[in-house]
Amino acid sequence: MLEAHFGVPLTGAALNAINVRLDAETVSYILTHCGAKVVLVDSEFGSLAKEAIAAIEAEGNTAPIVIDVDDPVHEGSRELIGQMEYEAFLETGDPELPFRWPEDEWDTITVNYTSGTTGKPKGVEYHHRGAWLGAMDNPHVWDMPHHATYLWTLPMFHCNGWCFPWGVTAQGGTHVCLRQVTSKNIHASFADYGVDHLCGAPIIMNLIANAPAEERKPFDHKIKMMTAAASPPAAVLQKMADQGIEITHVYGLTEVYGPATICAWNPVWNELPMAEQAEIKSRQGVRYNTMEGLEVMDPETMAPVPSDGETMGEIMMRGNIVMKGYHKNDEATTEAFEGGWFHSGDLATRDPDGYIHIKDRSKDIIISGGENVSSVEVEGVLYKHPAVKEVAVVALCDEKWGEVPCAFIEADETTTVTEEEIIKFVRSQLAGFKTPKKVVFGNLPKTSTGKVQKAVLRAAAKEFEGTY
Amino acid sequence: MLEAHFGVPLTGAALNAINVRLDAETVSYILTHCGAKVVLVDSEFGSLAKEAIAAIEAEGNTAPIVIDVDDPVHEGSRELIGQMEYEAFLETGDPELPFRWPEDEWDTITVNYTSGTTGKPKGVEYHHRGAWLGAMDNPHVWDMPHHATYLWTLPMFHCNGWCFPWGVTAQGGTHVCLRQVTSKNIHASFADYGVDHLCGAPIIMNLIANAPAEERKPFDHKIKMMTAAASPPAAVLQKMADQGIEITHVYGLTEVYGPATICAWNPVWNELPMAEQAEIKSRQGVRYNTMEGLEVMDPETMAPVPSDGETMGEIMMRGNIVMKGYHKNDEATTEAFEGGWFHSGDLATRDPDGYIHIKDRSKDIIISGGENVSSVEVEGVLYKHPAVKEVAVVALCDEKWGEVPCAFIEADETTTVTEEEIIKFVRSQLAGFKTPKKVVFGNLPKTSTGKVQKAVLRAAAKEFEGTY
Repeated sequence: MLEAHFGVPLTGAALNAINVRLDAETVSYILTHCGAKVVLVDSEFGSLAKEAIAAIEAEGNTAPIVIDVDDPVHEGSRELIGQMEYEAFLETGDPELPFRWPEDEWDTITVNYTSGTTGKPKGVEYHHRGAWLGAMDNPHVWDMPHHATYLWTLPMFHCNGWCFPWGVTAQGGTHVCLRQVTSKNIHASFADYGVDHLCGAPIIMNLIANAPAEERKPFDHKIKMMTAAASPPAAVLQKMADQGIEITHVYGLTEVYGPATICAWNPVWNELPMAEQAEIKSRQGVRYNTMEGLEVMDPETMAPVPSDGETMGEIMMRGNIVMKGYHKNDEATTEAFEGGWFHSGDLATRDPDGYIHIKDRSKDIIISGGENVSSVEVEGVLYKHPAVKEVAVVALCDEKWGEVPCAFIEADETTTVTEEEIIKFVRSQLAGFKTPKKVVFGNLPKTSTGKVQKAVLRAAAKEFEGTY
Repeated sequence: MLEAHFGVPLTGAALNAINVRLDAETVSYILTHCGAKVVLVDSEFGSLAKEAIAAIEAEGNTAPIVIDVDDPVHEGSRELIGQMEYEAFLETGDPELPFRWPEDEWDTITVNYTSGTTGKPKGVEYHHRGAWLGAMDNPHVWDMPHHATYLWTLPMFHCNGWCFPWGVTAQGGTHVCLRQVTSKNIHASFADYGVDHLCGAPIIMNLIANAPAEERKPFDHKIKMMTAAASPPAAVLQKMADQGIEITHVYGLTEVYGPATICAWNPVWNELPMAEQAEIKSRQGVRYNTMEGLEVMDPETMAPVPSDGETMGEIMMRGNIVMKGYHKNDEATTEAFEGGWFHSGDLATRDPDGYIHIKDRSKDIIISGGENVSSVEVEGVLYKHPAVKEVAVVALCDEKWGEVPCAFIEADETTTVTEEEIIKFVRSQLAGFKTPKKVVFGNLPKTSTGKVQKAVLRAAAKEFEGTY
């Protein structure tokens, strides 16, 4: 994956790094939609890829060429499904072939598929200019020094690993990749490889903070970790600080190359009690230098909200690290850029010191383990179940995953259906992280115009935290 | 000057930071050539500016509006010559006025006049894109952390201080400005203000390294210094290291926003004897990330030289941190960009590890105290002296200034003229740093086609090192 971030663009092609947790049907959709010509498949995922390729052919489309990456380090089953193995494939190359630079800096370097509010994933196109600037700016805002040793706990399929495949390289750093992201492997990398920088969703922080004693190894250097999606609570911050790990909180979306704002830290805040530090650090902060515009605006009037820490508005961004648009989806692109700004869908306030603070999401997105889950997509699958009359899926806070989907269902009174059956039904059609962990039966609360009141359901979901 | 680097571009204007060591006639030429509308004059230079303004009017041109910056910290004479004082001028501004952003990133942000091979200074135009990238990349290549404390020993009129007015600010750093660049003030800034970063020509390094004991103050932090123009000898490197100052060697020209290559340091070299370190560090190194192309090429064929450390070629560059061109001088611009590359005029080899190493300059430029001196300009003045029949000016190595001009003169046999008279004559018409420190009388060596052999004179000049 790391090599592909360089090799693929240098052939003049665009890279589409695919989320390995997706189901075969979605992978097949993505490969077809982006017109993939060649697919590199790690043998760990051979079975999934085989199913996805079969689905492409079943629909009468031409399957891409498949190159197997057969990694002997992987201890589980390895299935080779392609026309050629990766190393053999590289041998066929001409080392003297000149790089094929982009003709225009706005040319597409990568496409990243993300779940939006609608069911089908959208292909977010990154241009070379934005990727270059993102690669330079992430180390810059993080104050990451030259020759850092960077651990890959953030997936490279997630917004191209926040452009760090290129950014760490530009810093003359060392990439450390794990075959499996486990607390044991992470702790070993700190001690054995001197890892001093890593990124990841809150789940990774929990893995580190709560690792059993036998998985830990002593190390005596400082480590910096960048996290997004949810702000760490004081207890986790404290646990991380006790282990010599300093947390930087950033915020972004796939559409803005990963993080685009940072809760820039004022050293005087280090003197405050950890609970106050956590409160300050929970803010999404200020824009990256490469992001020309960051505003919290009333989406109706496009007027910025006052910096009073109270007035809500939608986070909007524009500038060099905003996507080109959604691949083959002009309608969604036009909608996303209404009024000349990218609409994040996140509702926030702006504090008097200019820092923004997310208060709610206007879109129906659940962020589980750092990945977007579209509640509409999950609802669409649930509607296929014969016992489901009406359904609404909302986020349920989860200690491990940040959030998990929770389904509220009005079931057909003539049938009996159980929570277990529903979960099994969804799991057969969707990835595990998209499957509801909790199902609640009953009448759905509605507005006078018949619209389901999701805010009411989100409040109701609170009582199920930790009960599943 | 620091404020002007922000305020002037944000009004939509271009900044022209003028070398305060220039003579009034040259300043007058520059102001007229660039069409200056407003001039900010520090009261220390009131007298010089007055003369320059008078010269503009004497030629029938409209003088610019003059704003006096009356700095009470300056202990010498302060002459106010303008229509308004700076602070009063700022009071007339409207704090609510929106910034006037550039309409196009290629718009000019600054003009920097530099001496080329011909006599008249050329106005190098910087665009916003290049200045932004230069501001980001200098801290990047230097590994300068956030919140650095930066000392202004490099003049801001020199390539806009290598874009550090913007770069230090982007890093959340602190600017420390000196009214007078003396070894005492520099040492005090280390101890009293915690300065940890500075840039400057070799002269600054010598000031620091050779400061008398009574001017030094103890400090216990590390300091990094970036230097260009000439590589520091082992003795100076050692003296700096003993004081906790680490030297980074960069190379560039006004036409490429200041430094554009860096002798990137491999930590394993720290184990070598200082003489070897100095030898390695004397190389100009590798390109900045923002510089797309750096090649050592045969200017006739435009073919890169082999990386053998022996074959000479001309350093050529292209990319984002190359100037737009010379202001109102299409001919010079076309010549500088012949073949699609900026011709540096510097002759170098490329080592097997890709580092470039300057061996000679093809242009007739002398670099004194970090500033370009055109030998042609000095020769032009010398030709005005009635006793001078023919003259050639070359660089003479100087311990303090790096290089100083040395004039070889064929004098009219019917007159007697002394070295002292010649020096005094030039000084009356040119800045001190452009005036020859040594004058040698005799016949000039020539090629069969009658061209003065400057290489022979440069070799001959060696015997006068330290004799003036």
